[in-house]
Amino acid sequence: MLEGHFCALNFFLFEESTFWGINWYLCALELEVYGELGFFFLRNIMIEGHGDDLFRFEGRVRINFSSNIPQNVNHEELIRHLCERGSLVGNYPEPEPKSVERRLAQLLGLEQESVIVTNGATEAIYLIAHLFEGKRSAIVAPTFREYQDAAKVFAHRVSFISSIDEIEASDADIVWLCNPNNPTGEVFCRERLLSIIDRCREKVFVIDQAYALYSVKRVLSAEDIAGRDNVVILHSLTKEYMIPGLRIGYAIGSAGVMDALRGLRMPWSVNALAIEAAHFLLDSGNREVISAEELHREALRLSCALSALGIEVAHTDCNFLLARLQKGRAAELKMWLVENYGILIRDASNFEGLTPAHFRIAAQSPQENDIFIKCMQEWLSL
Amino acid sequence: MLEGHFCALNFFLFEESTFWGINWYLCALELEVYGELGFFFLRNIMIEGHGDDLFRFEGRVRINFSSNIPQNVNHEELIRHLCERGSLVGNYPEPEPKSVERRLAQLLGLEQESVIVTNGATEAIYLIAHLFEGKRSAIVAPTFREYQDAAKVFAHRVSFISSIDEIEASDADIVWLCNPNNPTGEVFCRERLLSIIDRCREKVFVIDQAYALYSVKRVLSAEDIAGRDNVVILHSLTKEYMIPGLRIGYAIGSAGVMDALRGLRMPWSVNALAIEAAHFLLDSGNREVISAEELHREALRLSCALSALGIEVAHTDCNFLLARLQKGRAAELKMWLVENYGILIRDASNFEGLTPAHFRIAAQSPQENDIFIKCMQEWLSL
Repeated sequence: MLEGHFCALNFFLFEESTFWGINWYLCALELEVYGELGFFFLRNIMIEGHGDDLFRFEGRVRINFSSNIPQNVNHEELIRHLCERGSLVGNYPEPEPKSVERRLAQLLGLEQESVIVTNGATEAIYLIAHLFEGKRSAIVAPTFREYQDAAKVFAHRVSFISSIDEIEASDADIVWLCNPNNPTGEVFCRERLLSIIDRCREKVFVIDQAYALYSVKRVLSAEDIAGRDNVVILHSLTKEYMIPGLRIGYAIGSAGVMDALRGLRMPWSVNALAIEAAHFLLDSGNREVISAEELHREALRLSCALSALGIEVAHTDCNFLLARLQKGRAAELKMWLVENYGILIRDASNFEGLTPAHFRIAAQSPQENDIFIKCMQEWLSL
Repeated sequence: MLEGHFCALNFFLFEESTFWGINWYLCALELEVYGELGFFFLRNIMIEGHGDDLFRFEGRVRINFSSNIPQNVNHEELIRHLCERGSLVGNYPEPEPKSVERRLAQLLGLEQESVIVTNGATEAIYLIAHLFEGKRSAIVAPTFREYQDAAKVFAHRVSFISSIDEIEASDADIVWLCNPNNPTGEVFCRERLLSIIDRCREKVFVIDQAYALYSVKRVLSAEDIAGRDNVVILHSLTKEYMIPGLRIGYAIGSAGVMDALRGLRMPWSVNALAIEAAHFLLDSGNREVISAEELHREALRLSCALSALGIEVAHTDCNFLLARLQKGRAAELKMWLVENYGILIRDASNFEGLTPAHFRIAAQSPQENDIFIKCMQEWLSL
């Protein structure tokens, strides 16, 4: 692939300089930021570098710690429902998933105009990056890689800050933050966040609360956007209902901004089965399948056990945690765990600001977590 | 909605002029092109104006002539297969659907780098518009509305031409055409098209062959892109397998351009069930379910019958056709047919260059087509 991308890039740079009036500003910016091999190569590392990459290990993974989404969730009822509605494959879905936007608005106590439903929260991230094309983005890092990639794709000037205390001083037009944060699991203090938002009315805050349901601390709520035109909150039905395979999420914010995003959204981006699943789950509401407290308790147990082994672990308010090896690389640990124990972790080395020693895991069942701890003892004794 | 959009637009234009450094160039262009009410309003007409809008008529439609995709296709095997793989909803799909790109490349005799799989052909249209952001687009009209909307969303300067003979004289960087064309069903002469492409090396040709399978005339093939860096051909698994609910399509072209598009594509845009369905259908290949000749024969029969009733019908090489009422409006006919006979047609008045009298229908079974002809006799005698 790298070779392919390299050719592609050469192709842009050195073959016919008038290359069909291609988006040179974009290319130029990528090059400025990344150097010659740049964008295509890094995009590829990113796209191939996410967690839950089961598809690479055909059937070899028995315990999946790599996804932040609780595994072993029973989807039987949903699957039975989708099978009954299987004929939906034969007709177009709603061009815009308005029926889901209506239902969510009702549940959240918002006007329908304040909700936009997208192909996973990822589509919302790309639409927001598009709306603010070419502007200055500050990203509170380390965090989910998509803010940075979407911003780059839309020619933002991207800077990274390591704390929300640096927001006021930054010259950014857009501030991206993940709350609870991926990969650390940290939740920012709600009151502190709101006071920063209110002191920086000229900045847009994109707050990704995809993991809200897994948090033991309070995050922002739908009420918090009332009277605040400079906040967009992202949500993920993927995370709330553990259905990453279906791709459906949503954003809430002022009607003005949501309508502007709708104006940029392509039709039919959410498929018919995802729309059907959203209605089924929102109506039946199986949120109870997870207990943030239980998951967090297990995450803390893992955290203590790993610290006892001399592994550095960051503070978490969620079901997942970020750890750093004292010796060896996360990539080696990942392969060793898959090959020897069918355990999959998230190599976190491609998060901005992290190192090859960083990995992320999400707490699973107590028994599975015990197995993981034993495996780590063995790895460290090698 | 209109009111909502109007507010949104006012909001951009007249409230805080520094409105978070929003994409003013885009807004300005939209306004220049559309006038004040502009873009948001027209986007809405478009998005709500496509065919196959069954979702608006809960259960009232008995015969659907509004979609170009043959109805009453038996999807039982596919649905059974997807039900067996239902647990796919619980894990992320491939970030990029490379396994499908590999399989298609194999079937088409191309390098994998020459194929990109997208969330319906629509995502490919938007990615191409993004790659050539701000450039000059010429669209051979009347045609599928998405070329125009994607081009507008990415600030292209859009012009319309009514024949491929005008391409050489146009100053466009990008030429969009649909072959077979929607809504007319016309197929452009292959040799003429190739000679224009070869004479205009400085232009990029985006040729949407979504309806290729429904054509009785020869369209461009995968071999035709060899040695032609200025052609991208769009395909739709939606059309080839009659699965519009799943959203999966693809584009083929030079590895350089396909890699550039990959660099702009968001991860996970194609959901896990769509990827699974693509593999199932490409492996089992149920293309045989439709016969272009039979469908075309029925379309010609409809065409003659409608002409005999004094309705103007355009030449078609496919299963669908464009017609123009001598009296009354397509929107009224559409509502009358749904309310009295549960028949749905495509009001074609929102295609560039067409009028409120234009509608589009796709041939169904001989019996259903006879019913349609009788209904038209009744409507005309009212």
